Amino acid sequence: MSGDIVLALDAMGGDRAPAMVIRGANIARVRHPSLCFLVFGDERKLAPLLRKFRRLGQVCTIRHTTEVIEPNDRMAIALRQRKDSSMRRAILAVSEGEAAGVVSAGNTGALMALAKFVLKTLPGISRPAIASIFPTRRGESVVLDLGANIECTSDNLFQFAIMGEVFARTVLGVSKPTIGLLNVGEEEVKGHELIKSAAARIQETELPIEFAGFIEGDDIPAGTVDVVVTDGFTGNVALKVAEGTGRLYTDFLRAAFRRSVFSKLGYLLARPALNAFRERVDPRRYDGATLLGLNGVVVKSHGGTDHKGFANAIGVGVDMISQGFNANIIDELSRLHSDQVPEPTSAAM
Amino acid sequence: MSGDIVLALDAMGGDRAPAMVIRGANIARVRHPSLCFLVFGDERKLAPLLRKFRRLGQVCTIRHTTEVIEPNDRMAIALRQRKDSSMRRAILAVSEGEAAGVVSAGNTGALMALAKFVLKTLPGISRPAIASIFPTRRGESVVLDLGANIECTSDNLFQFAIMGEVFARTVLGVSKPTIGLLNVGEEEVKGHELIKSAAARIQETELPIEFAGFIEGDDIPAGTVDVVVTDGFTGNVALKVAEGTGRLYTDFLRAAFRRSVFSKLGYLLARPALNAFRERVDPRRYDGATLLGLNGVVVKSHGGTDHKGFANAIGVGVDMISQGFNANIIDELSRLHSDQVPEPTSAAM
Repeated sequence: MSGDIVLALDAMGGDRAPAMVIRGANIARVRHPSLCFLVFGDERKLAPLLRKFRRLGQVCTIRHTTEVIEPNDRMAIALRQRKDSSMRRAILAVSEGEAAGVVSAGNTGALMALAKFVLKTLPGISRPAIASIFPTRRGESVVLDLGANIECTSDNLFQFAIMGEVFARTVLGVSKPTIGLLNVGEEEVKGHELIKSAAARIQETELPIEFAGFIEGDDIPAGTVDVVVTDGFTGNVALKVAEGTGRLYTDFLRAAFRRSVFSKLGYLLARPALNAFRERVDPRRYDGATLLGLNGVVVKSHGGTDHKGFANAIGVGVDMISQGFNANIIDELSRLHSDQVPEPTSAAM
Repeated sequence: MSGDIVLALDAMGGDRAPAMVIRGANIARVRHPSLCFLVFGDERKLAPLLRKFRRLGQVCTIRHTTEVIEPNDRMAIALRQRKDSSMRRAILAVSEGEAAGVVSAGNTGALMALAKFVLKTLPGISRPAIASIFPTRRGESVVLDLGANIECTSDNLFQFAIMGEVFARTVLGVSKPTIGLLNVGEEEVKGHELIKSAAARIQETELPIEFAGFIEGDDIPAGTVDVVVTDGFTGNVALKVAEGTGRLYTDFLRAAFRRSVFSKLGYLLARPALNAFRERVDPRRYDGATLLGLNGVVVKSHGGTDHKGFANAIGVGVDMISQGFNANIIDELSRLHSDQVPEPTSAAM
């Protein structure tokens, strides 16, 4: 086995697992030649699949597991039972130092709970957050939290801002990322008390971060800022509204092209350009939500993803590991004066 | 002056006022022949405009006002000063029984505050909500609250459900509307305590409403339910993310068609179909957010709207008035047992 980066793959998570995991790993292997995998799952299913991809087989080690966490399993079951699940074992590989990160398309709640329990949060981070890359008119932005924390304190939001800033710098390659706090109006008088105190908290920090103040929902697709900070409830709704609106538009567009002979012909002529459009908005391109703030890189691929989406999710993990995302967070937080280091607080709402 | 429905128009609100208000009223006049208008604003500006539309002039009465509420005016200023503003005077016309409703493209916060102060809420409704129609894959749905109440109690959400249900029946013409509560997961274990108690509140009511339980952000554009109930913070973010994502997609599409000679030719061939697509997603088509729960119909047109959007906003007001929206709400609430009538409560969060 060769390679510099070792990733643990939960081969049994996701609607199309394990085939799409293996095929996705094969795409990622070509893109990132320094990669090798620990593949957790049912060996009887994985071995025949891997035989189809000889080169991939050379950088993969199968770790047989006997249990699977189902999409509807409650967190308690994932945590207390199913000790030999592919997901849990893959996360354990990270905590034991065998792998630098883990990628799973399984049950989000279970992944969140297991990763937090096994890996623990980074020093100075009280709660992990789910972050993802959104396509924008200006390029790409990172949005967090997308659902890990239904209720947040201003300290949580402050920590999300720092993690988002480091993510934009290390993964998106933005040299001086701007940060916006999602609100219902740009004026300082609007919004929850919580949001206002979070804004004050971010404004006061001596960390060299570029806080752009409040932004609104349409600023996310507009790309007004590089990092969008919000609580997990609002972020999850925003993510799903954006995805659903995208599907609505592509559906309406498809129906429009079917309207007449002329529009069908027009479609054929414009097809290469329309394919470029489709690729630009392809949700698989933005697959790979990451759980930030843990001792180890944890990437969540979409439950319904295919091999292309899973390969992109692996790519996000590779970027975070190779750019030293976690080391950067720790470094950033250590720059805070000791009296500014966020302490664990109870929910303020 | 003839006609059955009298609407008060704030002719000075909106970026393109007063011209777009007059032109919008002229479009609406053709669509709704029973309509006549009280037009509030600067007579020196309005009289020359109205001279251009002779027929409209016959169903319009100008009410001269000397002040205007600016987009950035604080609510306190709108409420306590500017007593002769076009917006305030138009709302007063409703409270004094001269008009059945008011349409304004002015400052949302000021309209909300003034309308609530002048008109008061309907019996049984503790807080008004902003509602709007969203395009969906199945047709149209109504979403509320879109920003009137940043924080809500479960009683507020219950009342929004009733108002949304009546709106879907009377304005959208759905005979048995389904109601969903916006959450981050369909499972009953997820979400805020507040959302859970609101769900229980809606489930327990003896009103004959069809509660479909929790829905997620992508269910809005999918049209899973006819009525989406949420707090004003989440609703506002959802609205703006949907609008912004729509703009992102049309921008990307425009760029795609410009890519090559073939795609430009394809565009020309498909143009009628693409125009139909554009019309289907045209935000002006869904202009006209309404303030539900007040003694009088109050419609808010988009600040940046043009005459077409303003005409549609007038149409929403006409529908609500002619379908007896408010009488239906009162009727619905009176069917609740007296011990179930929602009492004014303080914020629970």
